[in-house]
Amino acid sequence: MKQAIVARADLGMGEGKLAAQVAHASLQAYEEADARAQREWKGSGQKKIVLQANNERELFEINESADVEGLPHALVRDAGHTQLEPGTATTVAVGPATERAVDAITGELSLY
Amino acid sequence: MKQAIVARADLGMGEGKLAAQVAHASLQAYEEADARAQREWKGSGQKKIVLQANNERELFEINESADVEGLPHALVRDAGHTQLEPGTATTVAVGPATERAVDAITGELSLY
Repeated sequence: MKQAIVARADLGMGEGKLAAQVAHASLQAYEEADARAQREWKGSGQKKIVLQANNERELFEINESADVEGLPHALVRDAGHTQLEPGTATTVAVGPATERAVDAITGELSLY
Repeated sequence: MKQAIVARADLGMGEGKLAAQVAHASLQAYEEADARAQREWKGSGQKKIVLQANNERELFEINESADVEGLPHALVRDAGHTQLEPGTATTVAVGPATERAVDAITGELSLY
């Protein structure tokens, strides 16, 4: 079981900003998962991996693929109080789900 | 309502590593909170702020203070598969709780 969180590398987010957006996406996707997936993921150490997308289009494609495959997922848009324009799509979390299911969607992406 | 996630700035964690540790701490502290705090925090946009500690001692002090004050909190230790020694304390999340309660413990820290 794992969760992949994909963040845009083209926005120049600061480290703390990036971390907050990733945490946001992670929690939202977690809450989309069913109780069994939540339990299995936590029981196995809640593995998380942070990956990069190069632009908004790539982010949307990941989100769409997760939706089509029926995996828990969440797209985060920044409120825009700092650094970014309001509504900027920053991150997508996919999972918790099986490693195989998550890799099928995010396996081509580089580590952030 | 907010949650502060405090991460050690002295470990030289990469951006993706930092983000994963922050997300880990965030979710664990969230699960420590009672249902009302969870609901109120989510209803107000689940505000998160990422702050820095300079060393392990500062991190432990924040964790201890949150414990004494009865706030939801979680200390994360890295599993050590990459970058860090196994068991290295990396991050502490405090809250979700009122802004006032969280600031009383973390208000002196700088943004990460």
